[in-house]
Amino acid sequence: MAGTDKTQNQVLGPAPVVVLVHPQLGENIGTAARAMANFGLHELRLVAPRDGWPNDRATTASSGAHWILDRAQVFSEVVSSLKNMNYVYATTARPRDMIKEVITPEQAGDDMRVRVGRGERVALLFGRERWGLSNDEVSLADVIVTAPVNPAFASINIAQAVLLMGYEWFKEHATTLGQQSPQLAALRGPGLQTPSTRLATKEELYGLFEHLERELDAAGFFKTEKKKPTMLLNIRNMFGRAQLTEQEIRSLRGMVSSLTRTHQRRREPGA
Amino acid sequence: MAGTDKTQNQVLGPAPVVVLVHPQLGENIGTAARAMANFGLHELRLVAPRDGWPNDRATTASSGAHWILDRAQVFSEVVSSLKNMNYVYATTARPRDMIKEVITPEQAGDDMRVRVGRGERVALLFGRERWGLSNDEVSLADVIVTAPVNPAFASINIAQAVLLMGYEWFKEHATTLGQQSPQLAALRGPGLQTPSTRLATKEELYGLFEHLERELDAAGFFKTEKKKPTMLLNIRNMFGRAQLTEQEIRSLRGMVSSLTRTHQRRREPGA
Repeated sequence: MAGTDKTQNQVLGPAPVVVLVHPQLGENIGTAARAMANFGLHELRLVAPRDGWPNDRATTASSGAHWILDRAQVFSEVVSSLKNMNYVYATTARPRDMIKEVITPEQAGDDMRVRVGRGERVALLFGRERWGLSNDEVSLADVIVTAPVNPAFASINIAQAVLLMGYEWFKEHATTLGQQSPQLAALRGPGLQTPSTRLATKEELYGLFEHLERELDAAGFFKTEKKKPTMLLNIRNMFGRAQLTEQEIRSLRGMVSSLTRTHQRRREPGA
Repeated sequence: MAGTDKTQNQVLGPAPVVVLVHPQLGENIGTAARAMANFGLHELRLVAPRDGWPNDRATTASSGAHWILDRAQVFSEVVSSLKNMNYVYATTARPRDMIKEVITPEQAGDDMRVRVGRGERVALLFGRERWGLSNDEVSLADVIVTAPVNPAFASINIAQAVLLMGYEWFKEHATTLGQQSPQLAALRGPGLQTPSTRLATKEELYGLFEHLERELDAAGFFKTEKKKPTMLLNIRNMFGRAQLTEQEIRSLRGMVSSLTRTHQRRREPGA
């Protein structure tokens, strides 16, 4: 499918951020960038790419989508790559033993357009070539996106996964670019009403997790070190699902602080 | 996106035939075969592949979709490759100066399912890497399929084009196959994965609210009686949104109990 119109400008409006977690082959980073370019995605983040960065093989494989690679940001861990995001979609090929909503790429496309349309920053999380995302990484996301594939051959290349998500992002967008879309306006309805506040950033959410973990640790809540990772995962999934606003995060942290101070105050001399 | 279930049989029901016209790189034939396998396509036809056939690079790039390559048929020209077909979709990235209907991959998906469902043999025609299909080749098709792409970067890799068409073919199809596959059935709609537990009853949820309110009251969290009702409402909204399971409710109540006990224990005589 050749046919680039060189006279057209790149479409660089607000769009979902693509985060590749521990990508192994430069070729895949390059073809992912090409797929991004096809569908108007332009912000790429790499978490600890195996072969370092920049990577010549990525450039070659990108077929000219160099502006995406040039501006790619590199992070050492997933958490830091998501800090200024409001909403994160984790792409997985198989069902996870996790309490988290699972949607299709098509549903994700609708959802992304609504969120980006109202000013939220959203990210698409893609796993490493060999085994995808870890449960821990998935727990950092708000929702799981799984494409309906042949269960007998479910392994999708990263660039292909990026392509599907980009395609679904751009599919409807393409018809309404630059104009007020009644379709998008209609979709805005069922979204979260956040009257006088805004959705929390991931940095704020992760701050809550750390605060909670610290206090629960001090309280001996995690009976054994072995159980702790699973318990933390469950806590993250639970709070992650609620799509908390920044005000609610502050309120929850206030609650945690209050609760831990309770008996302290009661037992203070003279109290 | 790893996650192939090796216990599943390949889905080999009637499906559209993929015809690659003058493919140049073996890698692209292999990755196209892999994309076909992802979406239950299994019949591949090659028109005059540049590097001959079979091709080792194709096998390597197919990531195990060898059954498609093994059964691929080779033709010397497009016309003969389409002879036993009833309906042909030509995929192109740019508008052609041709009086022919142009539809989207999504529309093609619906159309293919209807046609294949009533026993028609349909083919998807993909052009060579460098410049796609000639006008002459497009004229052999019944309809043109063009994906909405960024006009400033419209060049899609063959395997990516095959993937999009396969995806649209399989997307709805998967809902009917779901009857046999629990994995696909799970994909049918949005929904929460609740592996080994169930959504909490309202009684359990309200029990959490009461527990939390009692402890927050004791902790002096509600600064004034006047503010308390609004703060309680916000807490209920927040936890209500998370669609908690009964296990999570127990876990949250355990957390509250732990946190309130923390400093108590620390300050006990001899502790």
